[in-house]
Amino acid sequence: MQSFQPPRRILMGPGPSDVSPRVLSALARPTIGHLDPEFQALMEDIKAALQRLMGAPDYACIPLPAPGTAGMEAAIMNLLEPGDRAVIAINGVFGGRMADMAGRAGAEVVTVEDEWGKPVDPARVEESLKQAPTKVLAFVHAETSTGARSDAAALCRIARENGALSIVDCVTSLGGIPVDAAAWDADVIYSGSQKCLSAPPGLAPIALSKRAQLAIAARKEKPRNWLCDFGLLMSYWGGEGGRSYHHTAPINALYGLHESLVMLFEEGQQAVFVRHARMHEALAAGLEAAGLSLLVAPEHRLPQLNAVVAPDGVDEAAVRDHVLKAWDLEIGAGLGPMKGKVWRIGLMGASATPWHVRLCLTALCDALAAQGRKVDSAAVLAAAEAKLAA
Amino acid sequence: MQSFQPPRRILMGPGPSDVSPRVLSALARPTIGHLDPEFQALMEDIKAALQRLMGAPDYACIPLPAPGTAGMEAAIMNLLEPGDRAVIAINGVFGGRMADMAGRAGAEVVTVEDEWGKPVDPARVEESLKQAPTKVLAFVHAETSTGARSDAAALCRIARENGALSIVDCVTSLGGIPVDAAAWDADVIYSGSQKCLSAPPGLAPIALSKRAQLAIAARKEKPRNWLCDFGLLMSYWGGEGGRSYHHTAPINALYGLHESLVMLFEEGQQAVFVRHARMHEALAAGLEAAGLSLLVAPEHRLPQLNAVVAPDGVDEAAVRDHVLKAWDLEIGAGLGPMKGKVWRIGLMGASATPWHVRLCLTALCDALAAQGRKVDSAAVLAAAEAKLAA
Repeated sequence: MQSFQPPRRILMGPGPSDVSPRVLSALARPTIGHLDPEFQALMEDIKAALQRLMGAPDYACIPLPAPGTAGMEAAIMNLLEPGDRAVIAINGVFGGRMADMAGRAGAEVVTVEDEWGKPVDPARVEESLKQAPTKVLAFVHAETSTGARSDAAALCRIARENGALSIVDCVTSLGGIPVDAAAWDADVIYSGSQKCLSAPPGLAPIALSKRAQLAIAARKEKPRNWLCDFGLLMSYWGGEGGRSYHHTAPINALYGLHESLVMLFEEGQQAVFVRHARMHEALAAGLEAAGLSLLVAPEHRLPQLNAVVAPDGVDEAAVRDHVLKAWDLEIGAGLGPMKGKVWRIGLMGASATPWHVRLCLTALCDALAAQGRKVDSAAVLAAAEAKLAA
Repeated sequence: MQSFQPPRRILMGPGPSDVSPRVLSALARPTIGHLDPEFQALMEDIKAALQRLMGAPDYACIPLPAPGTAGMEAAIMNLLEPGDRAVIAINGVFGGRMADMAGRAGAEVVTVEDEWGKPVDPARVEESLKQAPTKVLAFVHAETSTGARSDAAALCRIARENGALSIVDCVTSLGGIPVDAAAWDADVIYSGSQKCLSAPPGLAPIALSKRAQLAIAARKEKPRNWLCDFGLLMSYWGGEGGRSYHHTAPINALYGLHESLVMLFEEGQQAVFVRHARMHEALAAGLEAAGLSLLVAPEHRLPQLNAVVAPDGVDEAAVRDHVLKAWDLEIGAGLGPMKGKVWRIGLMGASATPWHVRLCLTALCDALAAQGRKVDSAAVLAAAEAKLAA
């Protein structure tokens, strides 16, 4: 057994994204205790930064000590009790996962399905909510499996109008496009550290509204998940009247998340969103010039997650293999019904730069050429450069 | 918001322990994708190392992507279904936590309580197991809240003889004293990364016997916890016939765990256990020379976790405060009924060195002197040195 030295990789899949040297270096700072007064100050700093980033000034915001899916599990398990009705919108892998979890929480699960690559249809969600009293509406803001963006504001409003709490999966949206919990009046939103925040995977920022907290306080039985029990978590992260031991916080991972938040606010939230949008426009222009098309209609596209349709006659897996071997470039495969049909190209956080756009287009042209497809790579790059210069 | 620079700290509490520069540096290696072929090789390496470390050659061994408590939750939630009878031995905080979780799993929970600081009494456990058919016996091998070691081999045998599966919490034992799943014939054992492995907190190595895996495969309903659903986890970590996406592994944290395992095997398991035992003997001799006593009887003491009784007239919290302020030394407080009554001094992993023993004794003598207690610090150090030289 020998020390592991990772190979060079450029991460442009659905996450993790490239982690900046500053964040990597923060990870390596000496570990201190999770009850140390200085660590408690760091926790307070992270809570305040998450409130700001999530547009959630009056929400309880903490990073859960586990991957983004823990955010989903915490949301579902804390809000739902056996017998509660839950309406879950499914338009990709992650809506389906929510439905699975809601079943484990003992809820009566009603799904509203939309085609993969399309946003959630608010009208059909509303119809379902009107059929019976519903505790929770859950949906995915930014479907990582397809790159489709749903209308979070409209869906949260419909939930509220029908007396339901809203759960919004913002794993891929946070830090790439605006996430505004208070403006949406959302109840629980959660994300992951390894997408547009460009910290390593392993943490799940989560925000709970006061309404959600009251609903949890009024539960008849304990949440089924101890680690994600929000009452216990908040007594650890709470800060008022001292902290109660719950778990041991992942100290070094939190150093990394903290540094990624420092960098995000240094650049400025608005500037970060503009950068993601511009890189997407450049990539999309280049892809179009290469004769490739995106799965999602322009008005519903996520800038940070581009599902590119593999053309007929092109071996989808061979292209990924080629760009990995020749260019050290990771792009993602399709999931579920999209397997073998799309590439998922991430432009997330530190991976959303002109350099990444150029490298990705160059590598893709090279891979397509290796399969005998004629691609004018100079024209592809020129199309992207025109957008980058705009 | 500014970058966080942790203060110097010497970690001799109940965990996290000091993390070596080699492990810190491994954490900062560039992040690669969790589906990358090279990362999959790292995963296989970690699985094999855990099998070796846990004495579990035929077990399924993986690190869960969350703190040690996730190991507990995974064990409980995967083995127990609603209505199952579970016997939980409680002789400290962590046994109590297991009982709480078993309740959330819907089990019929029967507790067998022992005094804090004492090991679990096998005779009373056996009595309880004989009262009714029991699915699971759960207990803590090394109680972090008291420093008491229970007889894992005997308790697992009693479980087996009575048709119950055994769950053994090895959070504080793994890497400090022998943990031998196969010799005990244990069914599920789990640990944490931040104790004797001296990696940062955030990962929970877990091992499941073939019997445990069969029991999980025969469940009537899904485990209540999706993130810790062992079937899903193994399809991600499995390696045979490709991997199914489950969560996104905490890449950099796994670099750290891997490096800590490399270091452990470089030193040699036996040498590591001898080192922990020797440091404990030196510390205990010094404490005795200082007129301090340990909570646990000598034959049940864990070398890596020393609960020291705060003498009458000494302000327990003031001593911790003093050693932190004057010596940058973290030692732990008592939990639950031990609050204000003991200090918990860890000699775990990278914190189990002669330097740590000397520093801790020196700082404690200084803190006691600051409270007006006469301590012959030269004699205290000499008592420790005699053991170190032995």
